Amino acid sequence: MFRNMFTSGDNRELANATIDFYTHVQRDMKVDIGVDPIGYLWLMSERQLSTSSHHVDSMEENGVQVVRYGARDLGEMIPGLALNQAEKEESRLMNLEDVAGAYFGPKCGRLAPEKLARFYKERFLDLGGDLIFGADAKSLIVDATVPTGLEGEPFLWQDSRVAGVRLSDGGEIRAATTVVAAGAWTNELLDPTGIDGHAKSKMRQLFTVPAQSGSALARLLHTKGFNPSGTIPFLILPKGGVIVKPMSEQAEFWVGGEDEVNRQFLAYPEEDIDANYPPERAYYEMSIHPVLRAYLPDFAGAGPSRMWSGLYSYNTVDNLPYVFEGDGLVVVGGDSGSGVMKGDSLGRVVDAVYRNGEETEVELFGGATYRASKLGFRKRDVEREDWLL
Amino acid sequence: MFRNMFTSGDNRELANATIDFYTHVQRDMKVDIGVDPIGYLWLMSERQLSTSSHHVDSMEENGVQVVRYGARDLGEMIPGLALNQAEKEESRLMNLEDVAGAYFGPKCGRLAPEKLARFYKERFLDLGGDLIFGADAKSLIVDATVPTGLEGEPFLWQDSRVAGVRLSDGGEIRAATTVVAAGAWTNELLDPTGIDGHAKSKMRQLFTVPAQSGSALARLLHTKGFNPSGTIPFLILPKGGVIVKPMSEQAEFWVGGEDEVNRQFLAYPEEDIDANYPPERAYYEMSIHPVLRAYLPDFAGAGPSRMWSGLYSYNTVDNLPYVFEGDGLVVVGGDSGSGVMKGDSLGRVVDAVYRNGEETEVELFGGATYRASKLGFRKRDVEREDWLL
Repeated sequence: MFRNMFTSGDNRELANATIDFYTHVQRDMKVDIGVDPIGYLWLMSERQLSTSSHHVDSMEENGVQVVRYGARDLGEMIPGLALNQAEKEESRLMNLEDVAGAYFGPKCGRLAPEKLARFYKERFLDLGGDLIFGADAKSLIVDATVPTGLEGEPFLWQDSRVAGVRLSDGGEIRAATTVVAAGAWTNELLDPTGIDGHAKSKMRQLFTVPAQSGSALARLLHTKGFNPSGTIPFLILPKGGVIVKPMSEQAEFWVGGEDEVNRQFLAYPEEDIDANYPPERAYYEMSIHPVLRAYLPDFAGAGPSRMWSGLYSYNTVDNLPYVFEGDGLVVVGGDSGSGVMKGDSLGRVVDAVYRNGEETEVELFGGATYRASKLGFRKRDVEREDWLL
Repeated sequence: MFRNMFTSGDNRELANATIDFYTHVQRDMKVDIGVDPIGYLWLMSERQLSTSSHHVDSMEENGVQVVRYGARDLGEMIPGLALNQAEKEESRLMNLEDVAGAYFGPKCGRLAPEKLARFYKERFLDLGGDLIFGADAKSLIVDATVPTGLEGEPFLWQDSRVAGVRLSDGGEIRAATTVVAAGAWTNELLDPTGIDGHAKSKMRQLFTVPAQSGSALARLLHTKGFNPSGTIPFLILPKGGVIVKPMSEQAEFWVGGEDEVNRQFLAYPEEDIDANYPPERAYYEMSIHPVLRAYLPDFAGAGPSRMWSGLYSYNTVDNLPYVFEGDGLVVVGGDSGSGVMKGDSLGRVVDAVYRNGEETEVELFGGATYRASKLGFRKRDVEREDWLL
């Protein structure tokens, strides 16, 4: 998914230029990366609309297109949406609020990450890059900057720096600068060197719900009026960060939620995610489905056909990504589950920091400039993000 | 050890009021907590003096007393100090610079932490507090704010919060607010709840070197002219953060160093530190002693009589401590090995945040006020610290 609706001006700048680049790849370069602007529809209670309005004002003042819908509009456009919760006993138990309106972002949408990765891979090979598959970077090599040849170095009185990586097949790759872009595994690589990866990781889950042709869920899936594809937008429900993604070509929905307190951080996540962090059917049944069926009653009785888990990695200080350099490294991460939608801009920041250090202006796609040091830690200067998913 | 010589104005404010309180306890309340202002003597090369001078100017502008010594002064006051390194082969190998001068802080010094802890313990009991020894807080209890009684809660749609701690003896202590002040073990308690402890921990080591009566090292130990106790001050050598602490009553020195890159972070440190992180004689011999004997040749041939390891825990974002509240918790930590010297002020901040939340002015000892939210993460506003030890 991608969106330009962020409360942080930094996130908006990074995402906006990235979305423009992806759209350029899809439309102008004619490379299919699955860009499909289905829109984000943030369904909110009266209370949420009120606490969010200054954020939305700020988005509009900064060029982010936002459409405001009232409860009546939503009732007409989405017949399957239950606006009123107060009279339902289960909803009262869950403290669910009535839907009073929504903010809609038409520049937001979905893309195909595997196609996008293939596009970058091919461009990288065109530039003369080299790729290795089937070998993990197991650890960073730390060397004395001026070696003495004495056993046990680097010593306290030596400057030392990262000089490359050791691979799982026993090989080594040495480099003047090593870029670490390892997501949830950043700490596993950096902690042994005593350099902070500034990222925390936890498990997240997705569940698919079929929307068979002719069913009420299929009608919900193909709700018209929001986007050129004629589907329901990506929905954010007013409780628990429950999200609903239409997958029209597969005749199904993908649904998930946003755990906060009571979902553990994983210091060093295992690589085999499926085996070590199996998705929990009880989480769908007891946590997600009650919210889902309350706001979208067509989901009543709908169980998940497939489910999977993944890792969500973020910078918990301000929920913004970081790029920092030093000790032979450039490290990028902390993108809070919204990495793909800032990926092109962050790639340009990494490139600029690699060439010129953190004190440099980066030209993003479309020509806007961004000061790299804002994303570092020596002179970090970013606006905290409040709209997480 | 305690010092008021920090590059960060926030650290100076927190430490200054704390030192004043400890001095008040020692002098006015007549409780012996071992306060002994032996001073900190930061020995520096020409280059270091130059890059530090703006920090020292700022300290003096803010009321921190600093005495500046030139190389000639130091040579006269400390006959055992080798100012010149350039002509020594071993020093050239280690890239050691000549000592060109020093900054001396007469308000800095040492105290007896076990006596200080006893003082606070007794005051706490006087106030009606209760203490439990011999039982560890093993984990935090997370409860739904409004319980339903359903198996498996808290669910995604419930608000949940920390409601107390589980003890190693199987007991539970429930509380409206739980204060976590767990140092290097903060992550072990907080990670399972998905709340970031914002701290990283690594091993640090100390080594004792005897200074037998009549020896050259004893003469160094009892160097006059710096403090009322007639001992050498606490020394910071110009390389590797090597520190030398005089322990005159035990006729020995304590020495250590500051590891940076190439000393691993420990995600969840083991409790039995001695068994799991044994001190390394090779670290003394190959890392600390070469620097020590170069600047203080009386240490030549002096091996450690005892050695031990401990854990150093800090906030790697800005090297400043934090106090934050939320989800039933108040968390204090990240004090970067200088916790004791800010302890009284941080205790007052915790007390104020517990009573009034982060948006409150805290009265420190002596009457100065400090805004608690500066140490939180929602509105963090602190000056990064550059003088770490």
